Amino acid sequence: MSDQEVSNKQVALKNYVTGFPKESDMQIITTNTIKLRVPEGTKDAVLVKNLYLSCDPYMRECMSAGDGGFSSFELGKPLTGYGVAKILDSTHPNYKKGDLAWGFTGWEEYSLIVSPRILIKIEHTDVPLSYYTGILGMPGMTAYAGFYEICTPKKGEYVYISAASGAVGQIVGQFAKLLGCYVVGSAGSKEKVDLLKNKFGFDEAFNYKEEPDLTAALKRYFPEGIDIYFENVGGKMLDAVLANMRNLGRIAACGMISQYNLEKHEGVHNLTLIVWKQIRMQGFLAGSYYHLYPKFLEMVLPYIKQGKIVYVEDKAEGLESGPTSLLSLFTGQNVGKKLLVVARE
Amino acid sequence: MSDQEVSNKQVALKNYVTGFPKESDMQIITTNTIKLRVPEGTKDAVLVKNLYLSCDPYMRECMSAGDGGFSSFELGKPLTGYGVAKILDSTHPNYKKGDLAWGFTGWEEYSLIVSPRILIKIEHTDVPLSYYTGILGMPGMTAYAGFYEICTPKKGEYVYISAASGAVGQIVGQFAKLLGCYVVGSAGSKEKVDLLKNKFGFDEAFNYKEEPDLTAALKRYFPEGIDIYFENVGGKMLDAVLANMRNLGRIAACGMISQYNLEKHEGVHNLTLIVWKQIRMQGFLAGSYYHLYPKFLEMVLPYIKQGKIVYVEDKAEGLESGPTSLLSLFTGQNVGKKLLVVARE
Repeated sequence: MSDQEVSNKQVALKNYVTGFPKESDMQIITTNTIKLRVPEGTKDAVLVKNLYLSCDPYMRECMSAGDGGFSSFELGKPLTGYGVAKILDSTHPNYKKGDLAWGFTGWEEYSLIVSPRILIKIEHTDVPLSYYTGILGMPGMTAYAGFYEICTPKKGEYVYISAASGAVGQIVGQFAKLLGCYVVGSAGSKEKVDLLKNKFGFDEAFNYKEEPDLTAALKRYFPEGIDIYFENVGGKMLDAVLANMRNLGRIAACGMISQYNLEKHEGVHNLTLIVWKQIRMQGFLAGSYYHLYPKFLEMVLPYIKQGKIVYVEDKAEGLESGPTSLLSLFTGQNVGKKLLVVARE
Repeated sequence: MSDQEVSNKQVALKNYVTGFPKESDMQIITTNTIKLRVPEGTKDAVLVKNLYLSCDPYMRECMSAGDGGFSSFELGKPLTGYGVAKILDSTHPNYKKGDLAWGFTGWEEYSLIVSPRILIKIEHTDVPLSYYTGILGMPGMTAYAGFYEICTPKKGEYVYISAASGAVGQIVGQFAKLLGCYVVGSAGSKEKVDLLKNKFGFDEAFNYKEEPDLTAALKRYFPEGIDIYFENVGGKMLDAVLANMRNLGRIAACGMISQYNLEKHEGVHNLTLIVWKQIRMQGFLAGSYYHLYPKFLEMVLPYIKQGKIVYVEDKAEGLESGPTSLLSLFTGQNVGKKLLVVARE
């Protein structure tokens, strides 16, 4: 523990965004310094070194001013988000120096976190540490809660996943296959479609950008209709899915990434089908399910170690690549779970 | 039981409808006759005299050609729908001559029903018999299943009901008040708003036609947001509600009457809020819940007899008034549960 100040590079939002975000909406701040200890008298706090930072679609909402679903980022301050960090100093009873944890931190080299909202100690280190931004962190819990708790899936059911090669989709698809479902995913490039079919074991996959008529495409892959839709994109895709849902179908509304950068969201026209087909569409956030995390780990760790579930990450090096990395989610340039490597230990 | 043929007036669909239906899309057929007995050798059949016929918004779907949510009416044949009927002859083990029943029948004076899909014997006749087209029939079960099974309501929650003076809405509001919720309803005329406040005991009610900004109107009535929305109308109202829902809110999607006559349904733009607010929106049909009918009767009959729940009907006399009555649902001219009196016994 040292009183010495070290430099603390940060990624900050420069201005609130409407429409599609640009790199120039963010800035790298290199002039700040930080003492690597919890300030005297500050209780329940940890001073952490950020190792991996997670790029997540919901962060787009925090780049807008005003009262969206999440609080907006503070201008000129480091972005906040999920990450994996090492505890350098602690006045928090649950953490000591040297511990590893994942949870809510800042887009900077070091963060002082007082009264952590979401911080979970990492107990298993025989898996890649970066997985705690993905399959073993928030996206993993999102897939787990969304599929098992929201979709109430049964063996043999027809499951469709959009944005299926992303941080959450790839896990949901593998969960569904392990349960014995028929699983189709869509994504936005040939490379991703190949991953879905050849790496993640989906039954079928297609490139939605090559389908002029999404309703017809889904009809082709699901001649008997869709029981479960894991919704990551919204808009036109949701309309096409509703037209193809079966009676008593379930839609886990995890995200609607196609809409976040539109100044006015697309209209969805087929909602009367929710009535006639008795569909349940349910929004959810992983944060409401973290009490299930131990149960989740118990299930998923053996699968990972046995190679029954694989996970594809898309890593970028350094905080400097933060803005490009975050934006890649919205252009679909990421392949798999996008994350920043800030430091390796 | 007689072999004599009697005349059997019918209401039939003349042509399939797009857009707003007109009286001239239907016709009264006066030339048919029927024998008042089940034909020799026909098993599991009843020959009934129709007493009351129910006008229900879902019937608009059956007036369109093609693959909507329900099967289309057969052109030139009597419309089908819910009604109350008296058994004149029966080869069905559950029914005998003189029994009363409610369920699926035809828009005609007498119907031969073979292997009835939905037919429930009426055991309690110390209430108005016409109630079995409404509070004691499908609309009642819709209100019961929608509110208690779909909305999972709790005392003190904020409940909003659109089309609140209709066949289902008036019951839902009274259920919610009995449970101790704060209940606001909307309807399309001063007369209906007065009913909501003064007859059904809603906490507040408003005329949606007088509100240029529905989002602002709901904000006024629900400064702390809406926990439960009983959805009867869809379209713009749904968008306004989503903007005012609280986290973990529930929407029972019972119907979307504002959309049925549009050739292209309105777009709903606020669906990302389903994700951020973790809203559950669930479509349902009463038919999936008829196994709960005995439990429902046990609850609702005492309330009716004690005057703790009231029910407003809007009766039209005779099959001739069928077309106008059905259309009145879509112009909002009905006040309360719309039904046809075909015969009183």
